[in-house]
Amino acid sequence: MIPNKYITWGNSGAIIRELAAYGAQRAKAVGPENVYDFTIGSPSIEPPKKFLDTVDELMKTVSPIELHTYAPAAGLESVRKAVAGYLADSFGVEYSPDDIYMTHGASSALAIILAALLSEGEDALVLAPYFPEYKIYVEQAGGRLIEVPCDADFQTDLDALEKRLTPKTSVLIINSPNNPSGAVLSESSVKAISELLNRKAAEYGHPIYIVADEPYRELVYGDIEVPFIPAFYDNTIYCYSFSKSLSLPGERIGYLAVSPKAEAHDDIRAAVNGAGRALGYVCVSTMFQLAAAQCLGVTVDISKYDNNRLLAYTSLKDMGFACVKPDGAFYLFIKAPDGDSQGFCRKAMEKDILLVPGDAFGCPGYARLAYCVSNERIRRSLPAFKTLAEEYGL
Amino acid sequence: MIPNKYITWGNSGAIIRELAAYGAQRAKAVGPENVYDFTIGSPSIEPPKKFLDTVDELMKTVSPIELHTYAPAAGLESVRKAVAGYLADSFGVEYSPDDIYMTHGASSALAIILAALLSEGEDALVLAPYFPEYKIYVEQAGGRLIEVPCDADFQTDLDALEKRLTPKTSVLIINSPNNPSGAVLSESSVKAISELLNRKAAEYGHPIYIVADEPYRELVYGDIEVPFIPAFYDNTIYCYSFSKSLSLPGERIGYLAVSPKAEAHDDIRAAVNGAGRALGYVCVSTMFQLAAAQCLGVTVDISKYDNNRLLAYTSLKDMGFACVKPDGAFYLFIKAPDGDSQGFCRKAMEKDILLVPGDAFGCPGYARLAYCVSNERIRRSLPAFKTLAEEYGL
Repeated sequence: MIPNKYITWGNSGAIIRELAAYGAQRAKAVGPENVYDFTIGSPSIEPPKKFLDTVDELMKTVSPIELHTYAPAAGLESVRKAVAGYLADSFGVEYSPDDIYMTHGASSALAIILAALLSEGEDALVLAPYFPEYKIYVEQAGGRLIEVPCDADFQTDLDALEKRLTPKTSVLIINSPNNPSGAVLSESSVKAISELLNRKAAEYGHPIYIVADEPYRELVYGDIEVPFIPAFYDNTIYCYSFSKSLSLPGERIGYLAVSPKAEAHDDIRAAVNGAGRALGYVCVSTMFQLAAAQCLGVTVDISKYDNNRLLAYTSLKDMGFACVKPDGAFYLFIKAPDGDSQGFCRKAMEKDILLVPGDAFGCPGYARLAYCVSNERIRRSLPAFKTLAEEYGL
Repeated sequence: MIPNKYITWGNSGAIIRELAAYGAQRAKAVGPENVYDFTIGSPSIEPPKKFLDTVDELMKTVSPIELHTYAPAAGLESVRKAVAGYLADSFGVEYSPDDIYMTHGASSALAIILAALLSEGEDALVLAPYFPEYKIYVEQAGGRLIEVPCDADFQTDLDALEKRLTPKTSVLIINSPNNPSGAVLSESSVKAISELLNRKAAEYGHPIYIVADEPYRELVYGDIEVPFIPAFYDNTIYCYSFSKSLSLPGERIGYLAVSPKAEAHDDIRAAVNGAGRALGYVCVSTMFQLAAAQCLGVTVDISKYDNNRLLAYTSLKDMGFACVKPDGAFYLFIKAPDGDSQGFCRKAMEKDILLVPGDAFGCPGYARLAYCVSNERIRRSLPAFKTLAEEYGL
């Protein structure tokens, strides 16, 4: 019998993809330049030259058999060594190659680690707003996802977190820089969360793990620093993807790093291997592993995203829309003027502005604008936004 | 709490990888030319020129952003169309693009389809011998894997199959050409299995699906034809990988095809989407999808595998070892002279011949020799095999 949950997940939740498909359809009707599609968080900046050159060089110097052969399930030894060394040098946490497990981007890292950490009937908490697939990964693992609302600036509401912690809590998922709000968790927040979790873990007699989902780590603007959570909280599993830093989302390459100081470290590493096998993973592309390992710390030129961020934020703010200035990622989270995000997105759509309702991210009352597009698209959309503002009497 | 099953799966079952690691270690000690490692089924023939040229061309003509961007979860529309058309033209089953779902090789296709077809407590039958990961995928889906022993020629024992069919049977997994035996299921076997399953499905009042795992379809020798199971049995989900036909195992590209005539077709397609999401898959590499779609029907030059097959088979046979001549894949399944496959592999290992015990494939009493190696390695190993044969008094 076909399990109902998969039919439901298969038929639902594709709102972002559906909106994008509508946008493509609409572009055929009115011209692509007249559709202001801000739905998909897909990088629009060329991968770094260093990365392209490295791939080129690998294709010239490594035989195709070697370049396209199986890698070990956890990743190539040399690559895991490079990643561990990079993390140790950058953030002062002494990872070893065995702490690293290469994954098909952050999504597979999350699916694997949540399977490895959650038993049937346990809770995973998540700081809202959050990426909707978390819920599926948690439920697939037999757990329950519990949302922790944030404060008005999208920072942590510690009381709200404490209220939701129970002896059934195994995991707290944190995504900073955040999709969809663009907020970066402050160091003081991380410290306060760590203190709270340590206290509660002692009370409950079992660890509470933080799963830190950080594909946007390098996409921060101004002098913002992103605290490295494993440096503050030992029971952290860090999930990373090269999708955004190298503009490489289609190649599915990332990793997870189990803190060397995590409780039950060896069991977690074994369970990660086991869950990886059980979910059907074999290995991450040898070619892209080798290339990424040579580009650790290399990042796309984010000045274009920054220009877009400032243009979108300043313009919408000036029109009267309420939004918090994003410090990272490539999203602007706009408050629906009357609190009805679905209505807001519908009204925007009538003007060919495509936004994603915040409901999809556990945060109704907002809409997400992905500004990883051409600057021109933002510029051309402004008159339509102006009309929208006027409709709401802003 | 960390689920025990993942710890167990993580710490176990890596016998092939462990043997290969031992081989690499041993090679350092005695020189690589003196270790006869036949453990890993990793292609050793250069990918076809057509494929390498296509990748080259794509890298020159498509912008890096476009080439490395997200693909839709099910695969690029143009690619699914090409695959559906290729299957229809080649085998006469009229697939549509919506029947095709691109996967990270056959392993992820199997993990996804078994999740999508099995509910808790149901049985998946498998014709032994079989690839050990099947058991994990079935158990991960909450099902139970039941082995159906084969006859002495590694063909189907229909009575054994019938005895194991019950109302709890949802799936029959068939892998032809077979890993590890190299056997190809005959058309008459496929017809007889189809008839039996149709009869039993009518009796039970629910479909029994065949999952046809066929990464070795093109690797057959002489004038052997591999029957296309969906052409004989409507309730078939076909799982394919380009790993072997294009010598591309590290890039993880393949697909599954739901027969257009399968019962509950739309629910299966939805469940495949849903299971893909739940297991953490996002998309298959855009670049390799585009390349593979241009290489449908293109296959590596298998004459080298064929030469290896004949050399290994004839030589071992002449020494007195019992083995069935393989028609496909790149494995020779050797009978342990005294029936003790573990002891046989141990004795072989003492002579630096590395084989995998058949126990790993649900078929004790045999050992697998992967002949996808250099012809020289086989040639150089023959004196050691000769000594082994003499030890057994052959």
